[in-house]
Amino acid sequence: MLDKQQVRLSSAEEYTISVGENVSAEFRRVAAQLNSTKAFLLVDANVAKLQSGFINEMKELHEQTEVFVIPAGEPYKSAEMFHHILDFLLSHRVERNNPVYAIGGGVTGDLAGFTTSCMLRGLPLVHVPTTLLAIVDSAIGGKTGINHSAGKNLIGTFYQPKAVIAPLSTLQTLPDSEFICGFGEILKYGAIADQDILEILNGKELLELRENLNQLRAIVQRCIKVKTDIVMRDTKEAGLRMVLNYGHTFAHAIEKLAGYGALSHGQAVYIGMLAANRLSEKLGGVIRHDLIRQHISGMAVNKEVINFSAGDLTDAMMTDKKRAGNNLRFVVLKQFGRPYVEEVTSLDLVHEAWTETVQEIMDHKSAP
Amino acid sequence: MLDKQQVRLSSAEEYTISVGENVSAEFRRVAAQLNSTKAFLLVDANVAKLQSGFINEMKELHEQTEVFVIPAGEPYKSAEMFHHILDFLLSHRVERNNPVYAIGGGVTGDLAGFTTSCMLRGLPLVHVPTTLLAIVDSAIGGKTGINHSAGKNLIGTFYQPKAVIAPLSTLQTLPDSEFICGFGEILKYGAIADQDILEILNGKELLELRENLNQLRAIVQRCIKVKTDIVMRDTKEAGLRMVLNYGHTFAHAIEKLAGYGALSHGQAVYIGMLAANRLSEKLGGVIRHDLIRQHISGMAVNKEVINFSAGDLTDAMMTDKKRAGNNLRFVVLKQFGRPYVEEVTSLDLVHEAWTETVQEIMDHKSAP
Repeated sequence: MLDKQQVRLSSAEEYTISVGENVSAEFRRVAAQLNSTKAFLLVDANVAKLQSGFINEMKELHEQTEVFVIPAGEPYKSAEMFHHILDFLLSHRVERNNPVYAIGGGVTGDLAGFTTSCMLRGLPLVHVPTTLLAIVDSAIGGKTGINHSAGKNLIGTFYQPKAVIAPLSTLQTLPDSEFICGFGEILKYGAIADQDILEILNGKELLELRENLNQLRAIVQRCIKVKTDIVMRDTKEAGLRMVLNYGHTFAHAIEKLAGYGALSHGQAVYIGMLAANRLSEKLGGVIRHDLIRQHISGMAVNKEVINFSAGDLTDAMMTDKKRAGNNLRFVVLKQFGRPYVEEVTSLDLVHEAWTETVQEIMDHKSAP
Repeated sequence: MLDKQQVRLSSAEEYTISVGENVSAEFRRVAAQLNSTKAFLLVDANVAKLQSGFINEMKELHEQTEVFVIPAGEPYKSAEMFHHILDFLLSHRVERNNPVYAIGGGVTGDLAGFTTSCMLRGLPLVHVPTTLLAIVDSAIGGKTGINHSAGKNLIGTFYQPKAVIAPLSTLQTLPDSEFICGFGEILKYGAIADQDILEILNGKELLELRENLNQLRAIVQRCIKVKTDIVMRDTKEAGLRMVLNYGHTFAHAIEKLAGYGALSHGQAVYIGMLAANRLSEKLGGVIRHDLIRQHISGMAVNKEVINFSAGDLTDAMMTDKKRAGNNLRFVVLKQFGRPYVEEVTSLDLVHEAWTETVQEIMDHKSAP
């Protein structure tokens, strides 16, 4: 079973996102279309190790296939690795029509996507996301990037792939924490655009969805639909696309204050969303907190990492690149499915929202 | 007097190319539209030195302006300089809406364009070409790039500016050789698309056009029209845009064999075009050689730099990135204004074309 969705940005930029348990036929179809004897696989080290059968199958898609293994982890989303990959491609005499398959999670997709966009002014790119987060978020929308000492993703391009092919089978070898991480963004899609996602997850143990592929597929398809709809209308993040940042103004500050690596991006987005729900309410929104709050345990939120003050939090927000002038800009909700962007002039509201969120997490933890 | 032409690639990518002796009002109009308190000037070192009045005027366009001077010369179109500029922008807390003005020739435009396309996934870019070659060629069309030890322009993006503003006044401080260099591409536009350009230049001393701004403006406008027409129909060099490479398969090999720096890009394109004219004829084309050949002295072609064999030339061509498989691909002409792309299987024709071209240059040099 293979689910497909179309992304159309212009007559020249159109591609298919395919998700399924068995994606072999789709790989062969796309490879035939790309029509190149030579191809490059840029593969996350964990995927190369745990999914060697899958990688070997991919090596057969083109006559000559060169493989570059990207060390796992955020520190390798670097300028150094960018240049290593460029050197690698050139050392194998890359030509303009040679496709690059980016196989891994967000780090691999962002790094490989950026490198591919800059090699010979852009090679054909196929995203092969192998984490839940990458499938529903980072592989869609054309954002690429590497980190700089001044911040994450500061160097990058907008670059659209020729296809996105997500093999759900790779989720089976994903560590629990990586699987759970994806639900930060999944719950966010539910909050900003499709409450049915929240209803499907209502009362569910998130980890158990890994065994229930039909239900997982249904959720993933809904998430991809939300993201592609938004991206098609606002490719370069001029306006609408900002709603995808629901919870993220909080999340970026939380990640920074907790120390990078202390919690996953998904966990930070989830906590950020709890706070954004509170802030939305203070600005007049009507929020069904229970649909998000019930997953505090499932998201494995650790209260130790959020023991900083509301003042520290807003200070950290002020240095974030998404701020507009002196005010803080937030995506907030009138209700689930009705997001809008608001510049908040009173830090008091933000402080209150955060204090209540910390209390909410503490109360939940201490519940039976 | 200000000449303007529109470039429309899509509803989102549309910009104006303005050329004139006095462009101050146009700068103010564009700066007002860009609506940013902060801006960055990336300026070629020679321009910074010789056109300080002009640069000072540009510093007044926005409330806060940070200036980065790019050392002059091809060696600085490097990954190192790319990272220097990224660091510079970030050290001044660049934000997404801050425009970058790229002020200089091809090296500055390509390097600054590439860097701008990769900073925060793309800042607003204004090209301010200050050489004749940059005005008619490199500032138009959205190609950016830096060099790699494996070859020129191997790392780069397609990235469209918000505006191109060409101040013709800067041509007055250009060295003669830099001014002449522009005519390689200008004559090429005449050959592939607009024979009137060749007729206007018929019997003219190229260097004297610097004093005749009206005639120069007319020629420049015709060249920009040729290039924008082609680029609008083929932004990413999928097909048609290849005709802009007339003479370039020869030129790249000539530059390589002569040693980089031994002759200018314009001179190499000019010699390459003499050879491409010969090759076109051998494939059935009808060419008015005199309209191109008469400028051998004006282009200051030095016969010393072309003393390599026809075999060396085709060997060098075979390593060029634009080759298709094992055959050499050339743009050739049925006649002026009617280019087409041909894969040439017989190297003999190429050898003959080159031998005749060398003879043509020798004969011209030895004429009274």
